[in-house]
Amino acid sequence: MKRIEDGSRRNGALLIIGDSETTADIYYRTRFFVNVTVMYVEHEGKKHLLVNDLEYGRAGSEARVDEVVSTTPYEDRIRALGEPVRLASVLHLFFEERGIEDVLVPQAFPFAHAERLRELGHGVKSRDDPFFPERAVKRPDEIEAITETQRYTEEAMALAADILRKSEIRSGFLYRGGEPLTAERVRIEIQKYLLEKSCQAAYTIVAGGDQAADPHARGSGPLPANQPIIIDIFPHSTVSRYWGDMTRTFVRGKAAPAVRKLWKDVLDAQTLAFERLRSGVDGQKVHEEVVSLFKERGNPNEEVGGKKTGYIHSTGHGIGLDIHEPPRIGKVESKLSAGQVVTVEPGLYYPGTGAIRLEDVVVITEDGCRNLNRFPKDLEL
Amino acid sequence: MKRIEDGSRRNGALLIIGDSETTADIYYRTRFFVNVTVMYVEHEGKKHLLVNDLEYGRAGSEARVDEVVSTTPYEDRIRALGEPVRLASVLHLFFEERGIEDVLVPQAFPFAHAERLRELGHGVKSRDDPFFPERAVKRPDEIEAITETQRYTEEAMALAADILRKSEIRSGFLYRGGEPLTAERVRIEIQKYLLEKSCQAAYTIVAGGDQAADPHARGSGPLPANQPIIIDIFPHSTVSRYWGDMTRTFVRGKAAPAVRKLWKDVLDAQTLAFERLRSGVDGQKVHEEVVSLFKERGNPNEEVGGKKTGYIHSTGHGIGLDIHEPPRIGKVESKLSAGQVVTVEPGLYYPGTGAIRLEDVVVITEDGCRNLNRFPKDLEL
Repeated sequence: MKRIEDGSRRNGALLIIGDSETTADIYYRTRFFVNVTVMYVEHEGKKHLLVNDLEYGRAGSEARVDEVVSTTPYEDRIRALGEPVRLASVLHLFFEERGIEDVLVPQAFPFAHAERLRELGHGVKSRDDPFFPERAVKRPDEIEAITETQRYTEEAMALAADILRKSEIRSGFLYRGGEPLTAERVRIEIQKYLLEKSCQAAYTIVAGGDQAADPHARGSGPLPANQPIIIDIFPHSTVSRYWGDMTRTFVRGKAAPAVRKLWKDVLDAQTLAFERLRSGVDGQKVHEEVVSLFKERGNPNEEVGGKKTGYIHSTGHGIGLDIHEPPRIGKVESKLSAGQVVTVEPGLYYPGTGAIRLEDVVVITEDGCRNLNRFPKDLEL
Repeated sequence: MKRIEDGSRRNGALLIIGDSETTADIYYRTRFFVNVTVMYVEHEGKKHLLVNDLEYGRAGSEARVDEVVSTTPYEDRIRALGEPVRLASVLHLFFEERGIEDVLVPQAFPFAHAERLRELGHGVKSRDDPFFPERAVKRPDEIEAITETQRYTEEAMALAADILRKSEIRSGFLYRGGEPLTAERVRIEIQKYLLEKSCQAAYTIVAGGDQAADPHARGSGPLPANQPIIIDIFPHSTVSRYWGDMTRTFVRGKAAPAVRKLWKDVLDAQTLAFERLRSGVDGQKVHEEVVSLFKERGNPNEEVGGKKTGYIHSTGHGIGLDIHEPPRIGKVESKLSAGQVVTVEPGLYYPGTGAIRLEDVVVITEDGCRNLNRFPKDLEL
C-alpha cells in the first residue's frame, strides 16, 4: 500500500460513509441532514458529496459542499457490465475520474467497503479518532447551539421535578390524579416538552429505587416515595443537531441518612471537579481525584450479587454533535483545552441503599470552566 | 489468513460490535437494549456479551445470552502493561482465554478494529449482508410487533388527517385556531401521539407543495391548501424495537386535475404491486412493472433545474428491526419469501405540479401478500 499521511496529497482523499444522524462527521463537514448513507470525499481542498437520486435535489440546495454528485450514472455503468452495484464500485469509478488513488477513513469505516476498495487497487488507511480533531474545541456558534439544547433540557427537568413535587405519597409510592405515577409517564412528559422545542430525547432515564443503581436502566413502573429517583435527560436538537445532557437526583418525601450522605459526597465530588477543570489539565487526573474523594468518604467499589457497585463510570465526556465524544474525563489521559464542552457527572450506586448522580455541562476556559447549568441541586422535593 | 467459512469451526467465532440502537443484529441476537458499544461473540454455539461495568448488572438480567463478561479485568491487565486500552486488545485477551483465532464480522464492522485484530494475529473476514439472513423472514412474534407499531402509525396518521381536515383555508394556506398551520406543528402532534404509544418518530415527513417533491425533505413552514401534502410516518417502538412505516398524500381543498392524475397513477401502481407480490417472485420484476406502468401513463423521469423528477426511488424495502433491511423491491434482483415484511411505496415527484406517494406495509405469503394497513387512500380532505 502506498504511504499516505493525510488527504491533501495529490492522489489521496478523505472518505467518510454514513448518514448524518449516526455519523456526526458527515454533518460536521456538510451541514446536510440525511438519514440514508451518503459518501463524502474531500480531495485537494474540495468537498464532494455522492448521493442517490432521492437525496440529490435536497443535497444540492442544503449541503455545504463544493459538489453534489449523483451515484446513478456510476450505478448504471456497473449494471451495464453485469456486475453487482456496490458502494465501493461506485466510489472506484468516481475515484478513477478524479485521479484519487488512496483514502483515509475514520476508525468506524465499514470493513467490507474498505476490503473492496483495496481489491479495486486503492490504499485504505484509518486516521486516529477523532477524525476531525477540531470538533472537540467548539466554535462560538456551536457553544450557542449546545447552550440552547441545554436550556431546553433544564426546562424539561423543571417540568419533571414539578410533577414529582406535586405527586401524592401513598404507601411508599407516588400518585398523580389518583393513579400511580410511573417512570414512563414522567419520561413521556419530558419528551413531549422537548418535542415542542424541536428536541428528541429518546433515551431519557427516569429510574427510581434499585432501578437507579443500574446507571443506564431507562426505568419503568411506579415511582417510589422516599427513595432517590435519577432523571437523566440527553436530547439533541433536530434543528441544530447539537446535544444537551443533564442529570438530577430527587427524593419525593424524606431521604434516608445514608442517601443524604451519598448525595453530599456526589455533590462535593462534582464541586471538586469544577474547581479542577481548566485548560491544560489532564481529565484523567480530575477523574482520579473524584475516585479518591469517594474512597476517602468510605464508598467502596465492590461486586455485590453480580452487580458492580460504587463509582462505576467516568466523570465526564465531551458533548457536541455526538452525545459522547472526546475529550474524556475518565481512566484515560486526555488533556483539556479551552472551548471544549464536557459533562461533569459523578455518581454512586448501591442497590438497597440508593443511587445518586448529578450532571452539568461546562465549557472549559483558560482559567477554569463555565457551567451551562443553573438548575438547583436540591435532593428532597 | 486462515480460511474460515463460518463461526462454527473450533477456532472461529462470529463477532459484532455496536449498540442495539444502530446495530440491529446486536438486539436481534441478545434482545438487550443498550445505547453504548458492546461486543457480541458467538462461539461453539454459545453467546457471549462483553460489556463495561456500567452495563454489567443490567446485561446480566436482561440480555438473552449464555454469558455476560465484564471488560474491566482485561482493561486493567492492558493498563498494567502500560498499553492503550483498545477494544481490539480487550477482545484479543478474551479470544486467547477462549481459544478463538479467527472471526467473521458484519460488512459494517469498524475498519480500525478489524485492522488491529489482524495485527494481533486474528483472521478477520466479513460475511455477506444480511449477517443473519434469517432476520428477513419474520417469526410470528416479529410480525405481531411490526403490526402493533403499524397500528399506532395509522392512528397517528388519522390524527394528522383530522388536523388537516379541520383546518381553515385562507389565501392558499391552511390555518388552525387563527394561526398558520405549519409542517412542524403537524409533525409534533404526530410525534406526541406516538410517544404515548412508546414509539419514536424522529424523522416524520410532513411536506407540502414543492417541498414534497424532494422525497426525503422533512418539510417546514406553513402548509399549502389545494396542493398535495405528503405525510410519511416511520416510528419504531421503544418497547419492541420494531418499526412501522406508512405514507399518505392529502390535498386539503381541491386537487388540480394533474395532481388527481398523478394520484390515480400511483394508486394503480401500488395495486399492481400488491397483485404481483407473493413468495417466489423477484422484487426487481415487480419494481420494473411499476416503472413501466408509470412510463405508459406518460410520467417521464427527467432532471429539471438540477432536480431529479418522476419515479426516483425504489418500490419497497424490508422492514423489521431496521427501517430499511432486506429484501428490496427495486433495481436489484431480490427473491421474495413468505414471512418477509416489506413496504410498497410507489411515488411520483414533479416540482411545480405536485408529488404523490402512497405506502403500506405487507407480509409476503405463499399465494400473495397481506396488507397490514387499513387506512383509506382518499386524496382530498
